[in-house]
Amino acid sequence: MAALAQKLGEKLQSVRSGNPLVHHITNFVVMELTANVTLHVGGSPVMAHSLEEVTDMVKLASCLNINMGTLEPNWVASMLAAGKKANSLGVPIVFDPVGNGATPYRTETAANLIKELDISVIRGNGGEIGLLADKGGQVKGVDSVGGPEEPAKVAKALANKLGTIVAITGPVDYVSDGKSAFAIRNGHKYLAQLTGTGCSATTAISCFVGANKEDKLMATVAALSFFGSAAEVAVKESSTKGPASFKVNFHDALANMTVEDFVQLVKVDDVSD
Amino acid sequence: MAALAQKLGEKLQSVRSGNPLVHHITNFVVMELTANVTLHVGGSPVMAHSLEEVTDMVKLASCLNINMGTLEPNWVASMLAAGKKANSLGVPIVFDPVGNGATPYRTETAANLIKELDISVIRGNGGEIGLLADKGGQVKGVDSVGGPEEPAKVAKALANKLGTIVAITGPVDYVSDGKSAFAIRNGHKYLAQLTGTGCSATTAISCFVGANKEDKLMATVAALSFFGSAAEVAVKESSTKGPASFKVNFHDALANMTVEDFVQLVKVDDVSD
Amino acid sequence: MAALAQKLGEKLQSVRSGNPLVHHITNFVVMELTANVTLHVGGSPVMAHSLEEVTDMVKLASCLNINMGTLEPNWVASMLAAGKKANSLGVPIVFDPVGNGATPYRTETAANLIKELDISVIRGNGGEIGLLADKGGQVKGVDSVGGPEEPAKVAKALANKLGTIVAITGPVDYVSDGKSAFAIRNGHKYLAQLTGTGCSATTAISCFVGANKEDKLMATVAALSFFGSAAEVAVKESSTKGPASFKVNFHDALANMTVEDFVQLVKVDDVSD
Repeated sequence: MAALAQKLGEKLQSVRSGNPLVHHITNFVVMELTANVTLHVGGSPVMAHSLEEVTDMVKLASCLNINMGTLEPNWVASMLAAGKKANSLGVPIVFDPVGNGATPYRTETAANLIKELDISVIRGNGGEIGLLADKGGQVKGVDSVGGPEEPAKVAKALANKLGTIVAITGPVDYVSDGKSAFAIRNGHKYLAQLTGTGCSATTAISCFVGANKEDKLMATVAALSFFGSAAEVAVKESSTKGPASFKVNFHDALANMTVEDFVQLVKVDDVSD
Repeated sequence: MAALAQKLGEKLQSVRSGNPLVHHITNFVVMELTANVTLHVGGSPVMAHSLEEVTDMVKLASCLNINMGTLEPNWVASMLAAGKKANSLGVPIVFDPVGNGATPYRTETAANLIKELDISVIRGNGGEIGLLADKGGQVKGVDSVGGPEEPAKVAKALANKLGTIVAITGPVDYVSDGKSAFAIRNGHKYLAQLTGTGCSATTAISCFVGANKEDKLMATVAALSFFGSAAEVAVKESSTKGPASFKVNFHDALANMTVEDFVQLVKVDDVSD
Repeated sequence: MAALAQKLGEKLQSVRSGNPLVHHITNFVVMELTANVTLHVGGSPVMAHSLEEVTDMVKLASCLNINMGTLEPNWVASMLAAGKKANSLGVPIVFDPVGNGATPYRTETAANLIKELDISVIRGNGGEIGLLADKGGQVKGVDSVGGPEEPAKVAKALANKLGTIVAITGPVDYVSDGKSAFAIRNGHKYLAQLTGTGCSATTAISCFVGANKEDKLMATVAALSFFGSAAEVAVKESSTKGPASFKVNFHDALANMTVEDFVQLVKVDDVSD
């Protein structure tokens, strides 16, 4: 585990020194939130959604973050155009299928984006990914109210099927590239009492993947372990008295945590078998 | 008053145990804010505005929250479509006519939504509701700079005329269903120094109404008393030093307040006569 | 300097007593943020972007704030319509060319807005303004990664060329109307670790210009000195431990700072020569 933690620490180091530009085409709820998460983690955010500029903006980016939380047809068109450009340039795409399964429009849009684009990482909650994998799962709006019974196996099978990395987040997070699988046991339940936590985790993944293109699997594991570690730091602050004060301390922790601090906090298991 | 407070406490209990899904078609300014308020109060938020999915999303909802703070024609079309679907399913609609009176477009849109939809609760500030009721009222953008002289009577008359519940919020809040009327004396002036306070109060009402469909009047009264009580708790925190630190403590208080705490803080008078 | 500080203090006083309504047509990332900044500084915010109402809304406004951070064609059409109406009514326009230079669409839109509208103040970072002035400058998405070598001279030359006031913000801010030039040395580096800082500074300028139409140059200088002074107050709070807790204290300081406090904190030099 010490070697693994060290390896994950190096992924954080790359974000901090590389300052990756993350182009977000995301939802209205989390734009300020995820822009701040990008800055705190060590990246540089840009939000741009217009067909008039998305293919130009993605040229400058280290990673394209696509999030369908408040989707509408012209935004989907921009996601497709930016995504195809990203694919042609080798810019990795991280996709958050927010609310997949809640409405036919969301389910169809997620399926279409996955079909049309070569996506590096898909992150969702148990309900969203369970439904995407056809392995059971239930959503209530954008919240998971039931994930697959064996999330590591489902992540692995779906990753295998789609040729991508799959992350299922929840009390324990699972990440697989279809061969290996990891369980990340960092985090705190306050995260579930704030809107945009999942979207923020996806943004953290985008920063780590953008700065670690040669090892997207460990970048994704590192991002989620780092995200959860910051939550653990925040909850220990005496000024944390509820979800809102937790959020302030959580964002401070994302910005203040050093590589050395992070390595000590990593709680990740290899669950490939 | 003890019996009334107890009754209002039961409305909060229903929110906490029922976890109502509130479908918001709302403005860009308050999306993150009201999603967090929904979570803290005890509901589950979903924001969806596209004509491609609003009628599917509202099927899942306990309440539909319509807010016209940054309206445009295609959003209004979605409000109407979602609203008609909500009516056909018995999903209550809570409406916030933000900035009614500021421009002809807002005034006409509010009037049209009220005409076309069967709305359960309308909440606005003194200026917005005064203008809606044609009883005097002045707005400056989205802020009230003058409400009706006798707000309880105006709320009652408008509620009667429209067959809905009307809430006028301000230093004292007034709620009426056209027969009874209540004055809610909870709150703090810091609330007026933050954007989206009115929208957040409407979201609280949506949570309470969604979880208490059998008594929407007392649900509305409870929501506003609860909202104001959380403000009173927040302002007593030593870390509250201005509107921004107040906001953090206010959101914590929304999340942390128990039914027992709330019952002790209720300041509501029956002003039906 | 004492006389200058006093003069700047009077500009704040006008904001506090005048409560200017600032009509924003701005980006999705900063809507809640800049609405709160408007309230804390002493103005009243309204966000309205639809062609159906922008010309009606701007009639009520003391200042029109145009920000192209997440632009798309129908929003640009509204910026032009509202801007032309503002010009015909004598309502000053403050313009923030967010990400100018990042994509052709942004560069062309900024140039077109400047050509079509009579703008009172343009505020951007070194990269954005350097590129606007054709004097060197580099942007990474919406962040500056290189400004002009002599910012005071560039601000002065561009102001002269366009017949407007130009503000370049960064570790030191420079403001010029083409004749005089000022350097503002208030601020703190935490501001660069938060999204929307530049947009918030533009909103502060809009409040000050809206309440001080007779002296837009000193209003702009006062706004930036005030904004930076609040950052200095915030960073001294013991509860400031990172960018997120800084933000809370910064917003409190914007709201709490008296004219007397501000006058003591002003750090502005005349660099006209």
